[in-house]
Amino acid sequence: MIILKLGGSLLTDKRKRFSIKRNILRRVVSEIKESGKRVIVVHGGGSFGHPIAKEYQLDRGLFNSFQLLGVALTRSAMQKFNSLIVDEFISQGMKPISIQTSAIVICKKRRISSFNYRIVDKFFSHGFTPILYGDVVLDEEMGFCICSGDQLIIELAKKFNPDMVVLATDVDGVFDKDPKKYKDAKLIEKISIRDIDKVKFYKIPTDVTGGIKSKIEELARLAEDGYNSIIINAKVRGRLKKALLGQKVKGTRIEGEK
Amino acid sequence: MIILKLGGSLLTDKRKRFSIKRNILRRVVSEIKESGKRVIVVHGGGSFGHPIAKEYQLDRGLFNSFQLLGVALTRSAMQKFNSLIVDEFISQGMKPISIQTSAIVICKKRRISSFNYRIVDKFFSHGFTPILYGDVVLDEEMGFCICSGDQLIIELAKKFNPDMVVLATDVDGVFDKDPKKYKDAKLIEKISIRDIDKVKFYKIPTDVTGGIKSKIEELARLAEDGYNSIIINAKVRGRLKKALLGQKVKGTRIEGEK
Repeated sequence: MIILKLGGSLLTDKRKRFSIKRNILRRVVSEIKESGKRVIVVHGGGSFGHPIAKEYQLDRGLFNSFQLLGVALTRSAMQKFNSLIVDEFISQGMKPISIQTSAIVICKKRRISSFNYRIVDKFFSHGFTPILYGDVVLDEEMGFCICSGDQLIIELAKKFNPDMVVLATDVDGVFDKDPKKYKDAKLIEKISIRDIDKVKFYKIPTDVTGGIKSKIEELARLAEDGYNSIIINAKVRGRLKKALLGQKVKGTRIEGEK
Repeated sequence: MIILKLGGSLLTDKRKRFSIKRNILRRVVSEIKESGKRVIVVHGGGSFGHPIAKEYQLDRGLFNSFQLLGVALTRSAMQKFNSLIVDEFISQGMKPISIQTSAIVICKKRRISSFNYRIVDKFFSHGFTPILYGDVVLDEEMGFCICSGDQLIIELAKKFNPDMVVLATDVDGVFDKDPKKYKDAKLIEKISIRDIDKVKFYKIPTDVTGGIKSKIEELARLAEDGYNSIIINAKVRGRLKKALLGQKVKGTRIEGEK
């Protein structure tokens, strides 16, 4: 079984609210189906969740009642985004089941403190493809917080002992500089837990969930527990399928010490 | 605090799939808002959940793999219905929060055996209006089952000690015959736990969650625990607001022995 993160930037145009890249979504789902692998899917917020979460400063936790509207709007937007993804899986003959993150996760200071993974496990065992997503969730100390899809895949990996963790993004992997800005940016093909602190990351300041650095930190934690992951560019046809099948594919591997 | 069930027949046209009665939804939400009362909302399946659940015989539990598609389709339809309702609350300036029933409820032989009400409680405490719904949920013995909105309000009432339970439907209350068919049908204004077995109910055979009889049985259980409820016709302007304010209103009261 594979835990698969579908990045928000992969499936939406972050510059335009509520925009979905239907062709990419369609192909991504078809590659999952063709791989024949069983997956648990987690998707990001993209142009649905991120802009509203940022506008209402939801990453800072609850500090005024005005934010409650921001939470309601973010949750509503994420539910609609999730519906679009679920429907694509259904239309391709799969059996997706949406699992609302905010109903099974509670955080404490932005880290998951309670995770009702039994729900995911049971739906998966029946043959469904669970589809979770990064979202605003309850936080025991902050009122609420943003639980990123990246944090979710860490928790899922710990519980479900996957063969692999695949992060499908819109870039080839981790670079030393932002590859969207710099032509001489170099792809880092492998990051081991030993050299995680030496890797130079660039920061994406607009990303309310912390961008590439927090992603790698989450994955490094995972590698510590022995679960390796790979970041690939799913915009390039065939890469996702190859990654799911465990074939050699361009990307960045984050590996443990084993 | 009031627990409010919004019937599927009230908000949709059951003869036409995915049809929503927008004007009624809008007025229902405005009456909730005008009442100034804090509510936990549960809505039914109506023309979204019911037809698919019936087609795939989901009320019988899991007996073949074909049904998994039915579960996926029902869950998807209910999520969309829920999104439409949530958005109406948002557009009227309220702070609704959808809580996915299938992520917080597990049943055993069609009865709720596990209910993670902490999620509902915490969102409510922060000032949100939780919105749950009848849906397909996991069942420890049957694989899955349908958890009706009526069963949900029972569980919520037990946990949240509400001032009242209000069921907003498209009929004036409980009748001795189907009021949609028989002109001489009589409204039963009060049902006490003592005479529950004497009441003559009519059966709606197409309703996958059991129709009026199962509704009354659920409410009778509630009345046993001391929580009274009222069934009203929310199609008639003003009745829902009156009921929420505890004013005298046409309907059927189901009362305990206190």
